Amino acid sequence: MDGIHYLDSNATTPVDPRVREAMIPYFTERFANPSAFYRFAQEVRGVVETARERVARLINADPQEIIFTSGGTEADNMAIKGVAFALRDKGKHIITSAVEHHAVLTTCQYLEKFGFEVTVLPVDRYGIVDLDALTQAIRRDTILITIMHANNETGTIEPIEEIARIAQRHGIYFHTDAIQTVGKLAIDVKAVGIDLLSLSGHKMYGPKGIGALYARTGVTIDPLVHGGHHERNRRAGTENVPGIVGLGMAAELARTELSENEKHVRALRDRLEQEILQRIPEVVVNGHPKKRLFNTLNCCFKGIEGEGILISLDFEGVCASSGSACTSGSLDPSHVLLALGLPHEVAHGSLRLSFNKFNTEEDVDKVIEVLPRIVERLRAMSPLWDVEKKIMKMQGKA
Amino acid sequence: MDGIHYLDSNATTPVDPRVREAMIPYFTERFANPSAFYRFAQEVRGVVETARERVARLINADPQEIIFTSGGTEADNMAIKGVAFALRDKGKHIITSAVEHHAVLTTCQYLEKFGFEVTVLPVDRYGIVDLDALTQAIRRDTILITIMHANNETGTIEPIEEIARIAQRHGIYFHTDAIQTVGKLAIDVKAVGIDLLSLSGHKMYGPKGIGALYARTGVTIDPLVHGGHHERNRRAGTENVPGIVGLGMAAELARTELSENEKHVRALRDRLEQEILQRIPEVVVNGHPKKRLFNTLNCCFKGIEGEGILISLDFEGVCASSGSACTSGSLDPSHVLLALGLPHEVAHGSLRLSFNKFNTEEDVDKVIEVLPRIVERLRAMSPLWDVEKKIMKMQGKA
Repeated sequence: MDGIHYLDSNATTPVDPRVREAMIPYFTERFANPSAFYRFAQEVRGVVETARERVARLINADPQEIIFTSGGTEADNMAIKGVAFALRDKGKHIITSAVEHHAVLTTCQYLEKFGFEVTVLPVDRYGIVDLDALTQAIRRDTILITIMHANNETGTIEPIEEIARIAQRHGIYFHTDAIQTVGKLAIDVKAVGIDLLSLSGHKMYGPKGIGALYARTGVTIDPLVHGGHHERNRRAGTENVPGIVGLGMAAELARTELSENEKHVRALRDRLEQEILQRIPEVVVNGHPKKRLFNTLNCCFKGIEGEGILISLDFEGVCASSGSACTSGSLDPSHVLLALGLPHEVAHGSLRLSFNKFNTEEDVDKVIEVLPRIVERLRAMSPLWDVEKKIMKMQGKA
Repeated sequence: MDGIHYLDSNATTPVDPRVREAMIPYFTERFANPSAFYRFAQEVRGVVETARERVARLINADPQEIIFTSGGTEADNMAIKGVAFALRDKGKHIITSAVEHHAVLTTCQYLEKFGFEVTVLPVDRYGIVDLDALTQAIRRDTILITIMHANNETGTIEPIEEIARIAQRHGIYFHTDAIQTVGKLAIDVKAVGIDLLSLSGHKMYGPKGIGALYARTGVTIDPLVHGGHHERNRRAGTENVPGIVGLGMAAELARTELSENEKHVRALRDRLEQEILQRIPEVVVNGHPKKRLFNTLNCCFKGIEGEGILISLDFEGVCASSGSACTSGSLDPSHVLLALGLPHEVAHGSLRLSFNKFNTEEDVDKVIEVLPRIVERLRAMSPLWDVEKKIMKMQGKA
C-alpha cells in the first residue's frame, strides 16, 4: 500500500486486521464442516451461530432471519428470484428503480424471460426515487418492490421508510439492496418494516466472498442454491466458515464503532469536497446535497472524460473510480448518472471518490495537490471544453 | 487438533498451510477489487487469472472455461439450472442417478416446478450407474445428463468415459459433479469429453466458500447469479480474491503432488480396511471393491446403528461420518445406500471413514484400537443383533 491513496471504498474495502485475525484459525486448525456430528464440528457450528447473531444485531434482525450467501450480488439474486419464483402464481409484476445496481437490474431483466413484468421507476436529478410514480406503478399482481438503500455511485440515500410503508399498505414484499449502507448507517429492519435486505462483507471491512440476506420471518422465498439442509433449507452448500466468522466480526466492529467511523470519514469527505469546489471551476457534485452517504463524493468536470482523470490519478497513486467498479472496464457512461438526467458527455466525465475508515488527511491532501492540475491539463487538450466555454460565454457565465 | 483423529475428509479437508499463506496478503494488503481500473487493482486481476490457469491445468481445460463459484454446490446448481433454462425451448428432460449428491438431486427436483422431467437412473449393488438404463432413458427432448464422478459416501467411481461417449453420440450435454475426485484423481476433461464439471475448494485442501464450474467453450448456460460483467458475464459478484488465490494454489499443489498423496492415503485406507475386516465379524464394505476412491471406506456393521458408533468414536476423538455430512444431522438412512439395495436397518448402520493427506498411521491405529470394542459393546445391547444372529444361524452361517 506504499504510495497508494485508496479512494475507491464503494468498490471494496480492506479487511480490518482484527477481522482477518479472527478468520485465520478456521482455515487449517478449526476446519471442520459445521454440519458434521462430532464435537470438533459442533465447536465450529457455534462460531457460525455467533456470527449470525452479530450480523442480526447490526440491523436489529433475529438470528434465524439471517441467511449467509457468497456476497451481496447473490443476496440480491436470491431475494428477487426467490420472491418471484415463490409467488409467481400470485403475480408477475416487480417494481424497481433506474439507479439500482446491476445485481438488481440484470436479475429483474432476466425474470422477463419467465414472463415477469418489470416497472423501472424514474428518479429526480439527485437520484431519489419518485414516490408518486411508485404508488402509481403498483398493480394487483405486483409481488415485489426492490429499491436500494443508498446508491453506490452517487451515495444518494433513498427514502426506504416511505417505500416500506407503501409496500406494507399494499401487502407487497419490500427488498432493499443495502450493500453500501450496512455498517455505515444505523439500520433497524423491524422499525423500517423491511422484508428482505442484502448486505455484503467486503464493503464493510469484511472479506470478499461472503454476504447475507435478511429475510423477515414469514417471508416466503425459493432458494437460489439447492442441495443440503444448510441455512435452514434456504441456502445449500458447506458454510464458508472463515468468511462467516469474518463477516460476524466485521458486523460487531461496525456496530460498536459506527459513529466514530462516520465522524472521521465524513470530515475527510467534506474537506475534499469543499476544496475541490473552491479550486476547480465548473464542477458539478452528483447525488443529493444532504441525503447522501458520508463517504461518497461523485462529481463531473465539465469538458473532460472521466477516463482521462482516472488514468492521471492512477499515475499519482490515487485509486478512484468512474461509475461503479462493476462497469469500470467499459467505456459506457454510468446508467445511474444518465437516470439523473445528466447528458452523455457529462456522465462520461464523472469521478467517484469514496472513503473508508483507514483513510487519512494525507489522502485528501494528495487529491487536492494533484487533481486541479490534472483537470486543467485535460481541459487544455479537450475540444469539448472549448465548446463548453463558448456555451458558458453565450449564457453570460464566463 | 490435539487428540483429534480426523477421518471425515469427504465432508471437508483442512486448508493446506501453503494455501492459507498464499491467501493472507489478499485480505488487508492487496485488497483491491479486480474489476477496478487502476494498477493496484490490475495486480490483483493478475493473480485471479493465474489461479484460473492453475485450476484449468489441473483438469486440462482452457482458462476461459473456468468460472469461479462460491463452491461445489453452486457449481452444480449453475450447471443444471443453467443448461435447463438456456435450452428449455429445445427440451425439458434431464437424466441423473439415484446416488447423486443432494446438490444435484434437489436441483433437478426443483426444476420439475418449471415443467422439466427428470429420470433418475438406478445403480447396481456397488453404486455404479446402469448404462443400459441410461441409453434407454434418452429421449428426443433430453438436454442434460448429470452423473457424478465419484460418490461422496461410498467412493464408487462412475464410468464417466462411457457416459460422456453416450451423451456425445446423442448430442446431449454431460455434466459431472467431480467434487470428490478433482485433486485426487487425474482428470482430463478434453480426453473424456466432459461438457460441464463441478469442483470445490474445501475438498482438496483449499478454502471453503470457493469452487468452480468448468464449462466447455461453446456450451450455452444461463447464469445463476446475475449482475455485473464478472467471469465473462457468466457469474456476477465481486471476485472472492483470497478464495480464488487459495483454490489456485490448492490446484497447483494437487497437480504436482497427486501421485504421492494417493500412495500415502491409499496405504492408510487399505490397512484400516483389512484390519477392520479381520477384527470385526459381519462387516460389509459398501461401494465397489475396486472402482472406488482410494481415500474412502464405507462399511456397515450388522445389527447396530451408525449413530451409536459415531457417538462412541467421537468420545475417543475420532471424527467420522454416517452418510454424507449434509444429512448427518438427520436420522434418515442414506439415500445412496438405499439405492444400492441395502435394507433400511443396514443402511442405518453405515460408517464412513475418509482420509486426507495429513492423516497418519496413528489415526489408523486409533480406529483399530477402539472400533472393535465399540462394535462389540453396541451389539451386546442391540436387539437387532440378536435377530441377525438367529437369521445367520438358520442360514447356517453362525
